[in-house]
Amino acid sequence: MTEVTRILARHVVQSRFEDLPSGVVNEARRALLHWIGCALGGCRNEAVRCALEATREYAGPPQASVLGTAERTDLVTAALVNAMSADVLGFSDTHLKTVLHPGGVVGPAVLALAETRRVTGVEFLHAFALGIEVACRIGLGVYGWHYGRGWHITGTVGTFGAAVAAGRLLGLDEARMNAALGIAATEAAGLREGFGSMCKSLNPGRAAQNGLTSALFAAKGFTSTPAGIEGRRGFAHVLGEAPDLEIIVQGLGSHHELLSNTYKPFPCGIVIHPLIDGCVTLAASGNLRPAEVETIELRVNPLVVELVSRASPQTTSEAKLSAQRSAAAALVRGRITEREYSPECIRDAEVVRLRSVVTLEPDAAVREDEAHVTVRLSGGRTIDHHVEHAAGSAARPMSDRDIESKVRGLAEPVLDASRIDRLIEAAWQITESDDAAVLARLATPAA
Amino acid sequence: MTEVTRILARHVVQSRFEDLPSGVVNEARRALLHWIGCALGGCRNEAVRCALEATREYAGPPQASVLGTAERTDLVTAALVNAMSADVLGFSDTHLKTVLHPGGVVGPAVLALAETRRVTGVEFLHAFALGIEVACRIGLGVYGWHYGRGWHITGTVGTFGAAVAAGRLLGLDEARMNAALGIAATEAAGLREGFGSMCKSLNPGRAAQNGLTSALFAAKGFTSTPAGIEGRRGFAHVLGEAPDLEIIVQGLGSHHELLSNTYKPFPCGIVIHPLIDGCVTLAASGNLRPAEVETIELRVNPLVVELVSRASPQTTSEAKLSAQRSAAAALVRGRITEREYSPECIRDAEVVRLRSVVTLEPDAAVREDEAHVTVRLSGGRTIDHHVEHAAGSAARPMSDRDIESKVRGLAEPVLDASRIDRLIEAAWQITESDDAAVLARLATPAA
Repeated sequence: MTEVTRILARHVVQSRFEDLPSGVVNEARRALLHWIGCALGGCRNEAVRCALEATREYAGPPQASVLGTAERTDLVTAALVNAMSADVLGFSDTHLKTVLHPGGVVGPAVLALAETRRVTGVEFLHAFALGIEVACRIGLGVYGWHYGRGWHITGTVGTFGAAVAAGRLLGLDEARMNAALGIAATEAAGLREGFGSMCKSLNPGRAAQNGLTSALFAAKGFTSTPAGIEGRRGFAHVLGEAPDLEIIVQGLGSHHELLSNTYKPFPCGIVIHPLIDGCVTLAASGNLRPAEVETIELRVNPLVVELVSRASPQTTSEAKLSAQRSAAAALVRGRITEREYSPECIRDAEVVRLRSVVTLEPDAAVREDEAHVTVRLSGGRTIDHHVEHAAGSAARPMSDRDIESKVRGLAEPVLDASRIDRLIEAAWQITESDDAAVLARLATPAA
Repeated sequence: MTEVTRILARHVVQSRFEDLPSGVVNEARRALLHWIGCALGGCRNEAVRCALEATREYAGPPQASVLGTAERTDLVTAALVNAMSADVLGFSDTHLKTVLHPGGVVGPAVLALAETRRVTGVEFLHAFALGIEVACRIGLGVYGWHYGRGWHITGTVGTFGAAVAAGRLLGLDEARMNAALGIAATEAAGLREGFGSMCKSLNPGRAAQNGLTSALFAAKGFTSTPAGIEGRRGFAHVLGEAPDLEIIVQGLGSHHELLSNTYKPFPCGIVIHPLIDGCVTLAASGNLRPAEVETIELRVNPLVVELVSRASPQTTSEAKLSAQRSAAAALVRGRITEREYSPECIRDAEVVRLRSVVTLEPDAAVREDEAHVTVRLSGGRTIDHHVEHAAGSAARPMSDRDIESKVRGLAEPVLDASRIDRLIEAAWQITESDDAAVLARLATPAA
């Protein structure tokens, strides 16, 4: 049997930053800036505020930042709430092969740790990249059955990513890194049943928190058994079915799953993006007025129907998981930002009317990043658009400037413009810094 | 579909203490005293000390007791470490139908809470009984496939028990109790893979902690979806296969699973008890000297072979999950207490010799609480003993005095005798108290 746990532990312990290809370092930097932006955008969400409020009674010393606020809390609670913030808008980075959102789980764990130890930018970015890599690889090992069964993969495998990243910063040796993975295995959790409620963001929050505590426990000598991932009653066999253990470790150090990480232009479920892209394009064409629209036909990958067919969403969380309502809003407003998921926009009469004329046609020949949009207008006119690859897909990734612009938009409600500039600069230049905690300082309002 | 989550939530919210039969109240009191005893016995274990050490960096205010010590920590960390203490000796109460150890998870969650709010003894015992009932019932709904798959059922369903018990003390209404169950569902975790390491006790520890935080979150308005347990991607279908949803709720309020809770006379895996009972009985008969023993044949339920066949255990954790070594030690020492699992006794040459002459014969006709022991002695003599029902089984339960005596033995290393007397008295009289936290005060050394 492939000793997956031991091989991963050894890789994380022995990896050298100078061996990472520049493309990997660059992608890690993009994921880093991106998740911080998402956390700034999400920090005022009620799920985050509620969680923070609930932890106040028992939280520890104010040793780490609640991003986007002047509040501080203990490092594991900071990992929890910052990961919730990063997730809550549905705007996270996505490893498309597994629908995992790795950066927003691994990042909060290592950033909280960096606020309590001196960590250089190189050490920090290296640990962050390793955590994403490990999470994506374990995700590949179980994906398919695992996600289909109902596991929220960001909550489950995210725990391993946070554990090894934190473990690397804590300087764990191979045996303790192995223990950290075993502890993470026995704590990994998170169900899709909670989607549409605050529990959806709690899952990545707990993944960040539990991954971090796994590493902190292992650092003190807390033990696990050797095969937490591949053992007969380990993670891969209990939360997966016929897992692909080989894919978890093959090409480790030469092949980088981190390079398959992507960023979303729209703050909603990734499978909705192609049809939004199509609707925004049609709206921008100037060829239609919403009042004329009689029907909207969407020919889409079958996953769209399975995951996000919601005809009458009432809340922001539901609306972000509604293909029909997202298409309607995109046609009416000509864009999809957080504002298009606000309660006001959800009640908008034109959007409500248009969402009711949307039909979804599943077509297995349509790829996940593809969509066909056909709009019939009063008077018999029809316009359509074929999205070959959605904006933000692996084939049409967001540029560095796109990411900067997205982060700027997310951060504006909580930070002033000059601070956002400094934060963006600090993220791009993180490997030059001797103190990674600068990111946390710049991601909170000036005193 | 049976609305399991809602029905449980409503029951917990609407239950009245005066409607509990006196037998249930009495069994709750026994479970209460028993888990506190187990926690006192386990509090110096290295897994507990290591976990406590790891939490120090981030733990909150010293608002709750670490049982058996003068240390205090925040209430959720107290729930964690006290549940670990209660579990770590393998001496917990056991709901035999599910091999769940409910008291040692639910108890630490509510006791920590009672140290931060004024809670009467009646409220406390009631919440504790409700938590055990809910955990056992959800356990029945998934047991079989769930445990066989590799889930550590005390870690998983224990979370629900701690959540509703804490939720009851927090005065949650039905909607918030429902949310607490949904949060518990998405956090429930714990793998059997970690058995034999510190992770085995971490699972119930996290169940207590996560159940408690589920209730604290729900109390602040944190939301979940309605069907955390029975939903298509809820706990029962994701961590169970073809779950029995009806059994979870049928007879709620009239049939009490709490009455099937049992207590162990020996600090090791429950499936080993019948054969230990037989070996202790033979040793006590005066008919054999260990040096004469040539073979020890154990005819046992097949679960013994599946779960606890370990020929050469090297550590205390392994020895407690070894049928062969437990039989050998019982024959040599004539009793099985914590001392018989000490490193010294594990190295004892006579015990090491005898464990190597043990054979296990699985027999599906032998019940789980039954065993046949046959010892062949030098010179051709054979003695045997048939254990019809093991001591501590449902058919031969420990008496109140047996439990007192067990608790006294466990508590003696950490509390003086008069304090133990007062603690035992306080537990038996808990419904007369206007402050349940008295139990925590008496379960720590006098200042």
